[in-house]
Amino acid sequence: MPGLTLADARIALDAGLAEADTIGQPMNVAVVDDGGHLLAFARQEGAIRASIDIAQRKARTSVLMEAPTAALMPLVQPGAELYGLEQTAGGLVVFGGGIPVHRDGVLVGAVGVSAGSAEQDVQVATAAVAAISTPVPA
Amino acid sequence: MPGLTLADARIALDAGLAEADTIGQPMNVAVVDDGGHLLAFARQEGAIRASIDIAQRKARTSVLMEAPTAALMPLVQPGAELYGLEQTAGGLVVFGGGIPVHRDGVLVGAVGVSAGSAEQDVQVATAAVAAISTPVPA
Amino acid sequence: MPGLTLADARIALDAGLAEADTIGQPMNVAVVDDGGHLLAFARQEGAIRASIDIAQRKARTSVLMEAPTAALMPLVQPGAELYGLEQTAGGLVVFGGGIPVHRDGVLVGAVGVSAGSAEQDVQVATAAVAAISTPVPA
Amino acid sequence: MPGLTLADARIALDAGLAEADTIGQPMNVAVVDDGGHLLAFARQEGAIRASIDIAQRKARTSVLMEAPTAALMPLVQPGAELYGLEQTAGGLVVFGGGIPVHRDGVLVGAVGVSAGSAEQDVQVATAAVAAISTPVPA
Repeated sequence: MPGLTLADARIALDAGLAEADTIGQPMNVAVVDDGGHLLAFARQEGAIRASIDIAQRKARTSVLMEAPTAALMPLVQPGAELYGLEQTAGGLVVFGGGIPVHRDGVLVGAVGVSAGSAEQDVQVATAAVAAISTPVPA
Repeated sequence: MPGLTLADARIALDAGLAEADTIGQPMNVAVVDDGGHLLAFARQEGAIRASIDIAQRKARTSVLMEAPTAALMPLVQPGAELYGLEQTAGGLVVFGGGIPVHRDGVLVGAVGVSAGSAEQDVQVATAAVAAISTPVPA
Repeated sequence: MPGLTLADARIALDAGLAEADTIGQPMNVAVVDDGGHLLAFARQEGAIRASIDIAQRKARTSVLMEAPTAALMPLVQPGAELYGLEQTAGGLVVFGGGIPVHRDGVLVGAVGVSAGSAEQDVQVATAAVAAISTPVPA
Repeated sequence: MPGLTLADARIALDAGLAEADTIGQPMNVAVVDDGGHLLAFARQEGAIRASIDIAQRKARTSVLMEAPTAALMPLVQPGAELYGLEQTAGGLVVFGGGIPVHRDGVLVGAVGVSAGSAEQDVQVATAAVAAISTPVPA
Protein backbone atom coordinates (compact mmCIF):
# COMPACT_ATOMS: atom_id res chain seq x y z
CA MET A 1 0.00 0.00 0.00
CA PRO A 2 2.12 2.88 -1.32
CA GLY A 3 1.23 6.60 -1.50
CA LEU A 4 -2.21 8.14 -1.82
CA THR A 5 -4.06 7.74 -5.10
CA LEU A 6 -6.64 10.15 -6.47
CA ALA A 7 -9.25 7.61 -5.42
CA ASP A 8 -7.93 7.77 -1.86
CA ALA A 9 -7.92 11.54 -1.93
CA ARG A 10 -11.51 11.65 -3.08
CA ILE A 11 -12.58 9.25 -0.32
CA ALA A 12 -10.98 11.62 2.18
CA LEU A 13 -12.54 14.63 0.48
CA ASP A 14 -16.01 13.12 0.55
CA ALA A 15 -15.68 12.10 4.18
CA GLY A 16 -14.66 15.65 5.03
CA LEU A 17 -17.46 17.21 3.00
CA ALA A 18 -20.00 14.90 4.65
CA GLU A 19 -18.75 15.95 8.08
CA ALA A 20 -18.97 19.61 7.02
CA ASP A 21 -22.58 19.02 5.99
CA THR A 22 -23.31 17.39 9.33
CA ILE A 23 -22.07 20.38 11.29
CA GLY A 24 -23.59 22.83 8.83
CA GLN A 25 -20.37 24.70 8.04
CA PRO A 26 -19.35 24.90 4.34
CA MET A 27 -15.67 24.09 3.95
CA ASN A 28 -12.65 24.06 1.70
CA VAL A 29 -10.95 20.66 1.81
CA ALA A 30 -7.54 19.83 0.29
CA VAL A 31 -5.60 16.58 0.10
CA VAL A 32 -1.86 16.53 -0.66
CA ASP A 33 0.58 13.68 -1.25
CA ASP A 34 3.76 12.86 0.69
CA GLY A 35 5.62 15.61 -1.19
CA GLY A 36 3.01 18.21 -0.16
CA HIS A 37 1.67 18.44 -3.72
CA LEU A 38 -2.09 18.84 -4.27
CA LEU A 39 -4.04 15.72 -5.18
CA ALA A 40 -7.65 16.88 -4.80
CA PHE A 41 -9.60 19.89 -3.63
CA ALA A 42 -13.21 20.94 -3.18
CA ARG A 43 -14.93 24.14 -2.05
CA GLN A 44 -18.52 24.03 -0.89
CA GLU A 45 -21.00 26.85 -1.57
CA GLY A 46 -20.67 29.44 1.14
CA ALA A 47 -17.11 28.62 2.19
CA ILE A 48 -14.99 31.77 2.33
CA ARG A 49 -12.49 32.09 -0.48
CA ALA A 50 -9.52 33.12 1.66
CA SER A 51 -9.65 29.52 2.84
CA ILE A 52 -8.93 28.11 -0.63
CA ASP A 53 -5.32 28.98 0.02
CA ILE A 54 -5.42 28.31 3.75
CA ALA A 55 -6.76 24.76 3.35
CA GLN A 56 -4.04 23.84 0.88
CA ARG A 57 -1.39 25.55 2.99
CA LYS A 58 -2.51 23.64 6.10
CA ALA A 59 -2.18 20.34 4.27
CA ARG A 60 1.25 21.26 2.93
CA THR A 61 2.36 22.46 6.37
CA SER A 62 1.32 19.14 7.93
CA VAL A 63 3.47 17.23 5.45
CA LEU A 64 6.49 19.50 5.72
CA MET A 65 6.35 19.63 9.53
CA GLU A 66 5.11 16.02 9.87
CA ALA A 67 2.61 17.25 12.44
CA PRO A 68 -0.94 18.54 12.75
CA THR A 69 -0.99 22.31 12.29
CA ALA A 70 -2.75 22.73 15.65
CA ALA A 71 0.37 21.35 17.34
CA LEU A 72 2.39 24.27 15.99
CA MET A 73 0.32 27.01 17.59
CA PRO A 74 2.01 27.05 21.03
CA LEU A 75 5.46 26.75 19.47
CA VAL A 76 5.19 29.93 17.38
CA GLN A 77 3.92 32.35 20.01
CA PRO A 78 6.03 35.36 21.00
CA GLY A 79 8.78 34.04 23.25
CA ALA A 80 8.25 30.42 22.23
CA GLU A 81 10.77 28.20 20.52
CA LEU A 82 9.68 28.55 16.89
CA TYR A 83 8.53 32.17 16.86
CA GLY A 84 8.30 33.27 13.21
CA LEU A 85 8.08 29.72 11.84
CA GLU A 86 5.00 30.62 9.79
CA GLN A 87 7.10 32.86 7.55
CA THR A 88 9.45 30.06 6.51
CA ALA A 89 9.22 27.31 3.91
CA GLY A 90 7.09 29.37 1.57
CA GLY A 91 4.54 30.22 4.25
CA LEU A 92 3.20 27.78 6.84
CA VAL A 93 -0.15 27.82 8.67
CA VAL A 94 0.05 27.36 12.41
CA PHE A 95 -3.59 26.99 13.44
CA GLY A 96 -5.71 23.87 13.46
CA GLY A 97 -7.12 22.15 10.37
CA GLY A 98 -4.12 20.40 8.83
CA ILE A 99 -3.58 16.76 9.75
CA PRO A 100 -1.05 14.26 8.35
CA VAL A 101 -2.18 10.94 6.87
CA HIS A 102 -0.22 7.84 7.89
CA ARG A 103 -0.45 4.32 6.53
CA ASP A 104 1.29 1.48 8.26
CA GLY A 105 3.18 4.08 10.24
CA VAL A 106 4.44 5.92 7.18
CA LEU A 107 3.56 9.53 6.30
CA VAL A 108 1.76 9.42 2.94
CA GLY A 109 0.14 12.85 2.76
CA ALA A 110 -2.14 15.25 4.61
CA VAL A 111 -5.55 16.85 4.67
CA GLY A 112 -6.16 20.58 5.15
CA VAL A 113 -9.55 22.08 5.99
CA SER A 114 -10.52 25.73 6.31
CA ALA A 115 -13.54 28.07 6.51
CA GLY A 116 -15.01 27.30 9.93
CA SER A 117 -13.67 27.81 13.42
CA ALA A 118 -10.35 26.06 14.09
CA GLU A 119 -12.28 23.49 16.10
CA GLN A 120 -14.66 22.82 13.21
CA ASP A 121 -11.78 22.67 10.74
CA VAL A 122 -10.03 20.07 12.89
CA GLN A 123 -13.25 18.05 13.22
CA VAL A 124 -13.70 17.90 9.46
CA ALA A 125 -10.03 17.16 8.78
CA THR A 126 -10.12 14.37 11.36
CA ALA A 127 -13.06 12.76 9.58
CA ALA A 128 -11.29 13.05 6.24
CA VAL A 129 -8.04 11.58 7.53
CA ALA A 130 -9.79 8.73 9.32
CA ALA A 131 -11.36 7.64 6.06
CA ILE A 132 -8.00 6.79 4.48
CA SER A 133 -5.59 6.13 7.32
CA THR A 134 -4.55 2.70 8.44
CA PRO A 135 -3.40 1.89 11.94
CA VAL A 136 0.24 1.25 12.77
CA PRO A 137 0.76 -2.51 12.36
CA ALA A 138 0.67 -4.38 15.66
CA MET B 1 -29.70 44.17 -9.10
CA PRO B 2 -26.61 42.09 -9.80
CA GLY B 3 -22.97 42.96 -9.04
CA LEU B 4 -21.46 46.40 -8.68
CA THR B 5 -21.06 48.58 -11.74
CA LEU B 6 -18.43 51.24 -12.24
CA ALA B 7 -21.17 53.81 -11.57
CA ASP B 8 -21.87 52.13 -8.22
CA ALA B 9 -18.18 52.06 -7.39
CA ARG B 10 -17.81 55.76 -8.13
CA ILE B 11 -20.79 56.61 -5.92
CA ALA B 12 -19.09 54.72 -3.09
CA LEU B 13 -15.76 56.37 -3.86
CA ASP B 14 -17.26 59.86 -3.83
CA ALA B 15 -19.12 59.20 -0.58
CA GLY B 16 -15.87 58.04 0.99
CA LEU B 17 -13.88 60.98 -0.32
CA ALA B 18 -16.51 63.41 0.96
CA GLU B 19 -16.32 61.84 4.41
CA ALA B 20 -12.53 62.07 4.28
CA ASP B 21 -12.85 65.78 3.49
CA THR B 22 -15.23 66.22 6.40
CA ILE B 23 -12.78 64.76 8.88
CA GLY B 24 -9.81 66.44 7.24
CA GLN B 25 -7.81 63.26 6.62
CA PRO B 26 -6.72 62.57 3.02
CA MET B 27 -7.42 58.97 2.07
CA ASN B 28 -6.91 56.15 -0.41
CA VAL B 29 -10.24 54.52 -1.28
CA ALA B 30 -10.65 51.29 -3.28
CA VAL B 31 -13.76 49.45 -4.43
CA VAL B 32 -13.60 45.80 -5.54
CA ASP B 33 -16.20 43.46 -7.03
CA ASP B 34 -17.45 40.17 -5.57
CA GLY B 35 -14.37 38.37 -6.89
CA GLY B 36 -12.05 40.84 -5.15
CA HIS B 37 -11.06 42.51 -8.44
CA LEU B 38 -10.53 46.29 -8.47
CA LEU B 39 -13.33 48.43 -9.89
CA ALA B 40 -12.30 51.95 -8.90
CA PHE B 41 -9.67 53.72 -6.85
CA ALA B 42 -8.79 57.26 -5.80
CA ARG B 43 -5.98 58.78 -3.76
CA GLN B 44 -6.32 62.26 -2.31
CA GLU B 45 -3.43 64.73 -2.04
CA GLY B 46 -1.56 64.08 1.17
CA ALA B 47 -2.61 60.45 1.61
CA ILE B 48 0.41 58.24 2.28
CA ARG B 49 1.37 56.00 -0.61
CA ALA B 50 1.86 52.79 1.37
CA SER B 51 -1.89 52.92 1.71
CA ILE B 52 -2.44 52.57 -2.04
CA ASP B 53 -1.74 48.88 -1.56
CA ILE B 54 -3.28 48.67 1.90
CA ALA B 55 -6.63 50.12 0.80
CA GLN B 56 -6.90 47.64 -2.07
CA ARG B 57 -5.77 44.77 0.12
CA LYS B 58 -8.36 45.65 2.78
CA ALA B 59 -11.12 45.56 0.20
CA ARG B 60 -9.89 42.22 -1.17
CA THR B 61 -9.56 40.81 2.35
CA SER B 62 -13.16 41.78 3.15
CA VAL B 63 -14.38 39.89 0.09
CA LEU B 64 -12.24 36.79 0.65
CA MET B 65 -13.04 36.63 4.39
CA GLU B 66 -16.63 37.91 4.00
CA ALA B 67 -16.06 40.16 6.99
CA PRO B 68 -14.90 43.66 7.90
CA THR B 69 -11.13 43.66 8.37
CA ALA B 70 -11.56 45.16 11.85
CA ALA B 71 -13.29 41.94 12.92
CA LEU B 72 -10.11 39.98 12.17
CA MET B 73 -7.86 41.92 14.53
CA PRO B 74 -8.66 40.04 17.76
CA LEU B 75 -8.54 36.68 15.98
CA VAL B 76 -4.95 37.02 14.80
CA GLN B 77 -3.30 38.16 18.03
CA PRO B 78 -0.66 36.01 19.72
CA GLY B 79 -2.49 33.16 21.40
CA ALA B 80 -5.70 33.74 19.41
CA GLU B 81 -7.34 31.32 17.01
CA LEU B 82 -6.07 32.61 13.67
CA TYR B 83 -2.55 33.76 14.59
CA GLY B 84 -0.65 34.16 11.34
CA LEU B 85 -3.76 34.52 9.14
CA GLU B 86 -2.46 37.72 7.55
CA GLN B 87 0.25 35.79 5.73
CA THR B 88 -2.18 33.56 3.85
CA ALA B 89 -4.22 34.02 0.68
CA GLY B 90 -1.69 36.31 -0.95
CA GLY B 91 -1.48 38.64 2.06
CA LEU B 92 -4.50 39.79 4.06
CA VAL B 93 -4.93 42.97 6.10
CA VAL B 94 -6.31 42.49 9.60
CA PHE B 95 -6.89 46.02 10.83
CA GLY B 96 -9.90 48.22 10.26
CA GLY B 97 -10.85 49.92 6.99
CA GLY B 98 -12.16 47.09 4.79
CA ILE B 99 -15.92 46.55 4.78
CA PRO B 100 -17.99 44.21 2.58
CA VAL B 101 -20.85 45.53 0.46
CA HIS B 102 -24.08 43.55 0.50
CA ARG B 103 -27.16 43.98 -1.66
CA ASP B 104 -30.34 42.13 -0.84
CA GLY B 105 -28.27 40.02 1.53
CA VAL B 106 -25.73 39.00 -1.10
CA LEU B 107 -22.02 39.89 -0.99
CA VAL B 108 -21.35 42.00 -4.09
CA GLY B 109 -17.97 43.56 -3.29
CA ALA B 110 -16.12 45.61 -0.71
CA VAL B 111 -14.59 48.98 0.06
CA GLY B 112 -11.10 49.46 1.47
CA VAL B 113 -9.86 52.72 2.95
CA SER B 114 -6.40 53.56 4.23
CA ALA B 115 -4.17 56.49 5.25
CA GLY B 116 -5.71 57.68 8.53
CA SER B 117 -6.09 56.03 11.89
CA ALA B 118 -7.94 52.71 11.81
CA GLU B 119 -10.92 54.50 13.31
CA GLN B 120 -10.89 57.14 10.59
CA ASP B 121 -10.45 54.50 7.90
CA VAL B 122 -13.48 52.63 9.22
CA GLN B 123 -15.53 55.84 9.33
CA VAL B 124 -14.75 56.64 5.69
CA ALA B 125 -15.31 53.06 4.54
CA THR B 126 -18.63 52.98 6.38
CA ALA B 127 -19.78 56.08 4.53
CA ALA B 128 -18.69 54.63 1.21
CA VAL B 129 -20.42 51.30 1.80
CA ALA B 130 -23.63 52.94 3.02
CA ALA B 131 -23.92 54.82 -0.27
CA ILE B 132 -24.33 51.64 -2.32
CA SER B 133 -25.64 48.96 0.03
CA THR B 134 -29.23 47.84 0.16
CA PRO B 135 -30.90 46.31 3.19
CA VAL B 136 -31.77 42.65 3.39
CA PRO B 137 -35.29 42.31 1.95
CA ALA B 138 -37.96 42.17 4.64
CA MET C 1 -28.90 29.33 -13.20
CA PRO C 2 -26.28 31.46 -11.52
CA GLY C 3 -22.59 30.64 -10.96
CA LEU C 4 -20.99 27.22 -10.79
CA THR C 5 -21.64 25.03 -7.75
CA LEU C 6 -19.29 22.40 -6.40
CA ALA C 7 -21.61 19.82 -7.94
CA ASP C 8 -21.16 21.50 -11.34
CA ALA C 9 -17.42 21.60 -10.87
CA ARG C 10 -17.28 17.91 -10.05
CA ILE C 11 -19.33 17.03 -13.13
CA ALA C 12 -16.79 18.94 -15.22
CA LEU C 13 -13.91 17.32 -13.36
CA ASP C 14 -15.27 13.82 -13.90
CA ALA C 15 -15.93 14.46 -17.59
CA GLY C 16 -12.36 15.66 -17.96
CA LEU C 17 -10.88 12.74 -16.05
CA ALA C 18 -12.90 10.29 -18.14
CA GLU C 19 -11.58 11.86 -21.32
CA ALA C 20 -8.05 11.67 -19.93
CA ASP C 21 -8.58 7.96 -19.26
CA THR C 22 -9.82 7.48 -22.81
CA ILE C 23 -6.70 8.98 -24.33
CA GLY C 24 -4.45 7.34 -21.76
CA GLN C 25 -2.82 10.52 -20.51
CA PRO C 26 -3.01 11.23 -16.76
CA MET C 27 -4.02 14.83 -16.12
CA ASN C 28 -4.41 17.63 -13.61
CA VAL C 29 -7.86 19.23 -13.92
CA ALA C 30 -8.95 22.45 -12.19
CA VAL C 31 -12.28 24.27 -12.17
CA VAL C 32 -12.54 27.92 -11.07
CA ASP C 33 -15.51 30.23 -10.55
CA ASP C 34 -16.23 33.50 -12.36
CA GLY C 35 -13.78 35.33 -10.09
CA GLY C 36 -10.99 32.89 -10.93
CA HIS C 37 -11.15 31.22 -7.49
CA LEU C 38 -10.63 27.44 -7.27
CA LEU C 39 -13.74 25.28 -6.88
CA ALA C 40 -12.41 21.78 -7.46
CA PHE C 41 -9.22 20.02 -8.50
CA ALA C 42 -8.00 16.50 -9.18
CA ARG C 43 -4.64 15.01 -10.14
CA GLN C 44 -4.45 11.53 -11.61
CA GLU C 45 -1.61 9.08 -10.88
CA GLY C 46 1.24 9.78 -13.29
CA ALA C 47 0.36 13.40 -14.06
CA ILE C 48 3.41 15.64 -13.66
CA ARG C 49 3.32 17.87 -10.60
CA ALA C 50 4.41 21.09 -12.31
CA SER C 51 1.00 20.92 -13.91
CA ILE C 52 -0.79 21.26 -10.57
CA ASP C 53 -0.01 24.95 -10.78
CA ILE C 54 -0.29 25.16 -14.57
CA ALA C 55 -3.79 23.69 -14.66
CA GLN C 56 -5.06 26.14 -12.06
CA ARG C 57 -3.27 29.04 -13.74
CA LYS C 58 -4.79 28.14 -17.12
CA ALA C 59 -8.27 28.19 -15.62
CA ARG C 60 -7.60 31.53 -13.93
CA THR C 61 -6.11 32.96 -17.12
CA SER C 62 -9.21 31.95 -19.09
CA VAL C 63 -11.42 33.83 -16.64
CA LEU C 64 -9.26 36.94 -16.44
CA MET C 65 -8.74 37.11 -20.23
CA GLU C 66 -12.23 35.79 -21.07
CA ALA C 67 -10.66 33.55 -23.70
CA PRO C 68 -9.23 30.06 -24.16
CA THR C 69 -5.54 30.11 -23.31
CA ALA C 70 -4.74 28.61 -26.73
CA ALA C 71 -6.04 31.83 -28.32
CA LEU C 72 -3.33 33.81 -26.55
CA MET C 73 -0.38 31.87 -28.00
CA PRO C 74 -0.06 33.76 -31.31
CA LEU C 75 -0.60 37.12 -29.61
CA VAL C 76 2.39 36.82 -27.27
CA GLN C 77 5.04 35.70 -29.77
CA PRO C 78 8.07 37.88 -30.48
CA GLY C 79 6.87 40.71 -32.67
CA ALA C 80 3.20 40.10 -31.87
CA GLU C 81 0.84 42.50 -30.18
CA LEU C 82 0.90 41.22 -26.60
CA TYR C 83 4.55 40.10 -26.29
CA GLY C 84 5.25 39.70 -22.58
CA LEU C 85 1.57 39.33 -21.56
CA GLU C 86 2.29 36.13 -19.61
CA GLN C 87 4.21 38.07 -16.99
CA THR C 88 1.26 40.28 -16.04
CA ALA C 89 -1.73 39.80 -13.75
CA GLY C 90 0.13 37.52 -11.36
CA GLY C 91 1.36 35.21 -14.12
CA LEU C 92 -0.79 34.03 -17.03
CA VAL C 93 -0.48 30.84 -19.08
CA VAL C 94 -0.59 31.32 -22.83
CA PHE C 95 -0.68 27.78 -24.20
CA GLY C 96 -3.69 25.56 -24.68
CA GLY C 97 -5.67 23.85 -21.93
CA GLY C 98 -7.67 26.64 -20.30
CA ILE C 99 -11.22 27.16 -21.56
CA PRO C 100 -13.94 29.48 -20.20
CA VAL C 101 -17.34 28.11 -19.17
CA HIS C 102 -20.38 30.06 -20.31
CA ARG C 103 -24.01 29.60 -19.31
CA ASP C 104 -26.72 31.42 -21.17
CA GLY C 105 -24.01 33.55 -22.71
CA VAL C 106 -22.52 34.59 -19.37
CA LEU C 107 -18.97 33.74 -18.22
CA VAL C 108 -19.37 31.64 -15.06
CA GLY C 109 -15.92 30.10 -14.68
CA ALA C 110 -13.28 28.08 -16.47
CA VAL C 111 -11.55 24.74 -16.67
CA GLY C 112 -7.79 24.29 -16.80
CA VAL C 113 -6.08 21.04 -17.78
CA SER C 114 -2.38 20.23 -17.81
CA ALA C 115 0.09 17.33 -18.01
CA GLY C 116 -0.25 16.15 -21.60
CA SER C 117 0.53 17.79 -24.91
CA ALA C 118 -1.28 21.09 -25.46
CA GLU C 119 -3.55 19.26 -27.89
CA GLN C 120 -4.42 16.62 -25.30
CA ASP C 121 -4.93 19.26 -22.64
CA VAL C 122 -7.37 21.11 -24.90
CA GLN C 123 -9.21 17.87 -25.69
CA VAL C 124 -9.70 17.08 -22.02
CA ALA C 125 -10.66 20.66 -21.12
CA THR C 126 -13.16 20.70 -23.97
CA ALA C 127 -14.85 17.58 -22.62
CA ALA C 128 -14.95 19.05 -19.13
CA VAL C 129 -16.41 22.35 -20.27
CA ALA C 130 -19.00 20.70 -22.51
CA ALA C 131 -20.36 18.81 -19.51
CA ILE C 132 -21.49 21.97 -17.74
CA SER C 133 -21.96 24.64 -20.39
CA THR C 134 -25.28 25.74 -21.74
CA PRO C 135 -25.83 27.27 -25.16
CA VAL C 136 -26.62 30.92 -25.66
CA PRO C 137 -30.42 31.25 -25.50
CA ALA C 138 -32.03 31.38 -28.95
CA MET D 1 1.76 73.85 -11.78
CA PRO D 2 3.27 71.00 -9.80
CA GLY D 3 2.39 67.29 -9.97
CA LEU D 4 -0.93 65.69 -10.78
CA THR D 5 -3.79 66.07 -8.33
CA LEU D 6 -6.65 63.63 -7.91
CA ALA D 7 -8.79 66.14 -9.78
CA ASP D 8 -6.33 66.01 -12.70
CA ALA D 9 -6.30 62.23 -12.60
CA ARG D 10 -10.08 62.09 -12.74
CA ILE D 11 -10.18 64.46 -15.70
CA ALA D 12 -7.80 62.11 -17.52
CA LEU D 13 -9.81 59.10 -16.43
CA ASP D 14 -13.07 60.58 -17.67
CA ALA D 15 -11.53 61.60 -20.98
CA GLY D 16 -10.25 58.06 -21.43
CA LEU D 17 -13.55 56.46 -20.46
CA ALA D 18 -15.41 58.75 -22.88
CA GLU D 19 -13.07 57.73 -25.70
CA ALA D 20 -13.60 54.08 -24.76
CA ASP D 21 -17.35 54.62 -25.01
CA THR D 22 -16.92 56.24 -28.40
CA ILE D 23 -15.06 53.28 -29.84
CA GLY D 24 -17.30 50.80 -28.01
CA GLN D 25 -14.53 48.96 -26.16
CA PRO D 26 -14.81 48.75 -22.36
CA MET D 27 -11.49 49.62 -20.74
CA ASN D 28 -9.41 49.68 -17.60
CA VAL D 29 -7.79 53.08 -17.13
CA ALA D 30 -5.13 53.94 -14.56
CA VAL D 31 -3.39 57.21 -13.73
CA VAL D 32 -0.14 57.30 -11.74
CA ASP D 33 1.94 60.17 -10.36
CA ASP D 34 5.56 61.02 -11.12
CA GLY D 35 6.71 58.28 -8.72
CA GLY D 36 4.65 55.68 -10.56
CA HIS D 37 2.17 55.41 -7.66
CA LEU D 38 -1.54 54.98 -8.41
CA LEU D 39 -3.72 58.08 -8.23
CA ALA D 40 -6.97 56.90 -9.81
CA PHE D 41 -8.38 53.87 -11.56
CA ALA D 42 -11.62 52.79 -13.21
CA ARG D 43 -12.82 49.56 -14.84
CA GLN D 44 -15.81 49.62 -17.15
CA GLU D 45 -18.35 46.79 -17.35
CA GLY D 46 -17.09 44.20 -19.80
CA ALA D 47 -13.40 45.07 -19.57
CA ILE D 48 -11.33 41.93 -18.97
CA ARG D 49 -9.93 41.64 -15.47
CA ALA D 50 -6.40 40.65 -16.48
CA SER D 51 -6.16 44.25 -17.64
CA ILE D 52 -6.66 45.64 -14.13
CA ASP D 53 -3.04 44.81 -13.52
CA ILE D 54 -1.89 45.51 -17.06
CA ALA D 55 -3.31 49.03 -17.16
CA GLN D 56 -1.60 49.98 -13.91
CA ARG D 57 1.62 48.31 -15.00
CA LYS D 58 1.62 50.21 -18.30
CA ALA D 59 1.27 53.51 -16.48
CA ARG D 60 4.06 52.61 -14.05
CA THR D 61 6.28 51.43 -16.91
CA SER D 62 5.80 54.74 -18.74
CA VAL D 63 6.95 56.67 -15.68
CA LEU D 64 9.92 54.44 -14.91
CA MET D 65 11.07 54.30 -18.54
CA GLU D 66 9.98 57.90 -19.29
CA ALA D 67 8.50 56.64 -22.55
CA PRO D 68 5.28 55.33 -24.04
CA THR D 69 5.13 51.55 -23.62
CA ALA D 70 4.61 51.13 -27.37
CA ALA D 71 8.10 52.54 -27.92
CA LEU D 72 9.57 49.65 -25.96
CA MET D 73 8.17 46.88 -28.15
CA PRO D 74 10.92 46.87 -30.84
CA LEU D 75 13.65 47.19 -28.21
CA VAL D 76 12.73 44.01 -26.32
CA GLN D 77 12.44 41.58 -29.22
CA PRO D 78 14.80 38.61 -29.44
CA GLY D 79 18.13 39.94 -30.64
CA ALA D 80 17.25 43.56 -29.86
CA GLU D 81 19.01 45.81 -27.39
CA LEU D 82 16.77 45.44 -24.35
CA TYR D 83 15.72 41.80 -24.70
CA GLY D 84 14.27 40.69 -21.34
CA LEU D 85 13.58 44.24 -20.12
CA GLU D 86 9.99 43.30 -19.23
CA GLN D 87 11.24 41.08 -16.42
CA THR D 88 13.05 43.90 -14.64
CA ALA D 89 11.94 46.65 -12.27
CA GLY D 90 9.17 44.56 -10.78
CA GLY D 91 7.68 43.69 -14.17
CA LEU D 92 7.27 46.12 -17.06
CA VAL D 93 4.75 46.05 -19.91
CA VAL D 94 6.17 46.51 -23.38
CA PHE D 95 3.10 46.84 -25.57
CA GLY D 96 1.10 49.94 -26.31
CA GLY D 97 -1.29 51.65 -23.90
CA GLY D 98 0.99 53.41 -21.41
CA ILE D 99 1.78 57.08 -22.11
CA PRO D 100 3.65 59.60 -19.94
CA VAL D 101 2.07 62.90 -18.95
CA HIS D 102 4.22 66.01 -19.25
CA ARG D 103 3.52 69.53 -18.05
CA ASP D 104 5.72 72.39 -19.08
CA GLY D 105 8.20 69.82 -20.31
CA VAL D 106 8.36 67.97 -16.99
CA LEU D 107 7.26 64.37 -16.45
CA VAL D 108 4.42 64.46 -13.92
CA GLY D 109 2.86 61.00 -14.29
CA ALA D 110 1.38 58.58 -16.80
CA VAL D 111 -1.80 56.95 -18.01
CA GLY D 112 -2.18 53.22 -18.66
CA VAL D 113 -5.07 51.69 -20.59
CA SER D 114 -5.84 48.03 -21.22
CA ALA D 115 -8.59 45.67 -22.40
CA GLY D 116 -8.82 46.42 -26.13
CA SER D 117 -6.36 45.93 -28.97
CA ALA D 118 -3.04 47.70 -28.47
CA GLU D 119 -4.20 50.27 -31.03
CA GLN D 120 -7.42 50.92 -29.10
CA ASP D 121 -5.56 51.09 -25.82
CA VAL D 122 -3.20 53.71 -27.26
CA GLN D 123 -6.13 55.70 -28.65
CA VAL D 124 -7.84 55.83 -25.26
CA ALA D 125 -4.62 56.61 -23.40
CA THR D 126 -3.85 59.39 -25.86
CA ALA D 127 -7.23 60.99 -25.17
CA ALA D 128 -6.70 60.70 -21.43
CA VAL D 129 -3.22 62.21 -21.55
CA ALA D 130 -4.29 65.04 -23.84
CA ALA D 131 -6.89 66.12 -21.29
CA ILE D 132 -4.26 66.99 -18.66
CA SER D 133 -1.03 67.68 -20.51
CA THR D 134 0.30 71.11 -21.22
CA PRO D 135 2.57 71.95 -24.10
CA VAL D 136 6.25 72.66 -23.65
CA PRO D 137 6.55 76.42 -23.07
CA ALA D 138 7.63 78.32 -26.14
